[in-house]
Amino acid sequence: MSIKITGTGSYIPTEIVTNQDFAKHEFKNEDGTSFPYPNEIIAQKFLEITGIQERRYVNKGLETSDIATIASKIAIGDANIDPETLDYIIFAHNFGNVAHNKLQTDILPSLASRVKHDLRIKNPNCVAYDVLFGCPGWVEGVIQAQAFIKAGMAKKCLVIGAETLSRVVDKFDRDSMIYSDGAGASIIEETEEDGGILAHQTATFAYDEAFYLSFGPSFNKELNQDERYIKMEGRKIYEFALNNVPVAMKQCLDKSGVSINEISKIIIHQANEKMDEAIIKRFFKLYGAETPEGIMPMSIHKLGNSSVATVPTLYDLLIKGKIENHEIGKGDYLLFASVGSGMNINAFVYKM
Amino acid sequence: MSIKITGTGSYIPTEIVTNQDFAKHEFKNEDGTSFPYPNEIIAQKFLEITGIQERRYVNKGLETSDIATIASKIAIGDANIDPETLDYIIFAHNFGNVAHNKLQTDILPSLASRVKHDLRIKNPNCVAYDVLFGCPGWVEGVIQAQAFIKAGMAKKCLVIGAETLSRVVDKFDRDSMIYSDGAGASIIEETEEDGGILAHQTATFAYDEAFYLSFGPSFNKELNQDERYIKMEGRKIYEFALNNVPVAMKQCLDKSGVSINEISKIIIHQANEKMDEAIIKRFFKLYGAETPEGIMPMSIHKLGNSSVATVPTLYDLLIKGKIENHEIGKGDYLLFASVGSGMNINAFVYKM
Repeated sequence: MSIKITGTGSYIPTEIVTNQDFAKHEFKNEDGTSFPYPNEIIAQKFLEITGIQERRYVNKGLETSDIATIASKIAIGDANIDPETLDYIIFAHNFGNVAHNKLQTDILPSLASRVKHDLRIKNPNCVAYDVLFGCPGWVEGVIQAQAFIKAGMAKKCLVIGAETLSRVVDKFDRDSMIYSDGAGASIIEETEEDGGILAHQTATFAYDEAFYLSFGPSFNKELNQDERYIKMEGRKIYEFALNNVPVAMKQCLDKSGVSINEISKIIIHQANEKMDEAIIKRFFKLYGAETPEGIMPMSIHKLGNSSVATVPTLYDLLIKGKIENHEIGKGDYLLFASVGSGMNINAFVYKM
Repeated sequence: MSIKITGTGSYIPTEIVTNQDFAKHEFKNEDGTSFPYPNEIIAQKFLEITGIQERRYVNKGLETSDIATIASKIAIGDANIDPETLDYIIFAHNFGNVAHNKLQTDILPSLASRVKHDLRIKNPNCVAYDVLFGCPGWVEGVIQAQAFIKAGMAKKCLVIGAETLSRVVDKFDRDSMIYSDGAGASIIEETEEDGGILAHQTATFAYDEAFYLSFGPSFNKELNQDERYIKMEGRKIYEFALNNVPVAMKQCLDKSGVSINEISKIIIHQANEKMDEAIIKRFFKLYGAETPEGIMPMSIHKLGNSSVATVPTLYDLLIKGKIENHEIGKGDYLLFASVGSGMNINAFVYKM
C-alpha cells in the first residue's frame, strides 16, 4: 500500500499586477514615517530579494472558496475519480473568505463545506473541514490525509490550499508587494503502486516566534488603527527559516531512507527567491554537498507568494510540464517543504 | 492499546447574563420589522424551548485563545503530564479571536500557536493547528487525535474547543440569547488500559444544508449591512438534526459493538434543550426503546450554547462531579455526539 497524489489542479487568477503597478503607492515605515527614497528604488530592491516581477489577484466577484472549487474540479478530473467517493475534503487557508472591499473574515460555514456544496457532493461520509496552519497548511493537509489513510479512516482525500491575500494587505506596507492570490488542489489516494509519501516532518515554533507573522494595523497612522492586515517581521522570519527549515528537511529525508543524491526536485513554499535559495544551499551543505543545478523549480517570479497555494500550484504546473526547463516523471524522488505563520515548518519525501 | 481522555479542564466565563438582561433589547424579524409582542413573551418562549436561563460572557480583556489557555492548563495538570511531551495541540473554533467591540476575526497566527506560546512549550515537535468544523469541532479534534495515534504519529494530544460567541452576535436577533462563551480542553493519550474510544462516526451535509448556519447582516436594517454576525435558520436546523443525528449516533454505537442498554450517559452538544431531548428520544426509538431517566446530563440551563466548548466543558464538569444528580466512573460507556455548522454531525463511543 502507498499513499500517492493521483490528481492535481490549480487556479491562477487572471488579474496580473506588476511591480510597476505599485509605483504610486505611498509606502511607509512601521512608525508611519515615509521612505526617504522613491518607489523605483524600493521596487528594484524588492525584485532583487524576492524575485517577484508580477503577482496575481482574483477578480472582484471571487472569494477564496470559489477559486478553491475551480482548482478542485480540475484535480478531481485529473485523478479521474467520482467526487462522491471522496472521504475527506481538507481545506487549508489562513484568512477565510474576505469579499472585495470588506474587512471581515467569513469562515461560517467552513470553506471546505462551501467547496463540498459547490462540487455538489451528496455523500455525507465525505468529511469537510478547514485547517489553519500558516503557509504550510496544504503540506500539513496532505500529512493529515496520510494519517487518516494509515488509520483506516479514508482512502481518497481532496486537499486544498487557497488564499486571497490581496484582500488582507496594507497598501502602505512594502511587504504588500509580496502577496498574491491562488488555489491549488490535489487528490491523495491509497494505491497499490510503490512509492508515494515515504516520510514526513512537522514542527511548530511558538515560544518566541508565534507572532512573526500576525494581524496588525496599517502603517498609515491616519487610517483606523483597529482595521488589521497581514504583517510580517521579515528579517526575523528570514533568520528563523534559514536556521530551522534545512534541519527539518534533513530530518525528513533521513527518516525516508532516500539519499540526498536521489532527490530530483525540491518543491518549496514560494516565499522569497533569495530566502528559498539560501535554505536549499544550507540544506545541501548539511550533507557536505553543493546545490545541484535545476533542483528547485520556482513560480514566484510571475505568481508571487500565495501562501498555502504556492506548493500545490507549483506541483500542478510542474507535473503538467508548465515550468520551463523542469521535468519530472515516474520514479522521481521529490522533497516538498514549507514554512510560515505559527511559525510552522513541514516537509515530506515523495516517490512519484 | 487504547486511546483515552486522561485529563480535562474548562473555563467558565465570569459574567453571568440572564434572560432578563435582554429585556430592553429591540428584537426584530429577519426583514427588519419589529415583533408584535413584548420581550417578556419572547423570553418565556425562549426559555421553554431552549432551557437556557443564563449564559456566560468573557470579560472585555479576554479573547478565545486566552480562555483556551486557561482550560488547557487545567487539563494538563489533571492529566499530570509534562506539556513538553504533547505531540499535538488541536484547537477547534469557528470565529477565531474577536476582541471586544471589534469586527475582525484574528486567526493569524492560529489560535493553537497562541496557546502553545502561552503555555510556554518549547518542543518544536508539538504540532499546533486549528480546525474549523462548526460546533462539532472538539469531537472532531478528538477523532483526528485518534487518527494520529493510530497512525503512529502521536501519543499525547491536547484537544481544545473554545469560542466567544458574545463577540459575533446580532443584538437585534432573538437567537443572540442562545449563544455563550466558554472553553473546554482535554488530553487524549495512548494508554495500556482497556476501553477508550471504541468507535466514531462523522458526517458533513453540505448539499442543501451548508448555509443553515452562516455569517449575515444585522436584522436592524439601519446598521451597516456589510457588518456580519452569526445567523441561523433555526427551524431547518431543528428538522435536520432530528432527521440525521439519531441515525449517526446509531451508526456509531453499532460499529462499537456496545449495546444500547450499556450506555450510561449521552454527552451531547448543548444546542437547545428541547432539540436535544427530541434527538435522544428518537435515538432510543431506533432501538425500540424508551429514553432512560438521567441519561442526558445538561449544562445549557446556566451555561447556554458555547458552540465547540459545550461538550468538553460538560464532560469536565461531569467527571469532576459538578453536574447535579449525574455520576460517572470507571468502566462506564459514554456516547459523545455533536451537530452544527457545516452542517456537521459526529459521535464517538467511549469506555471510561
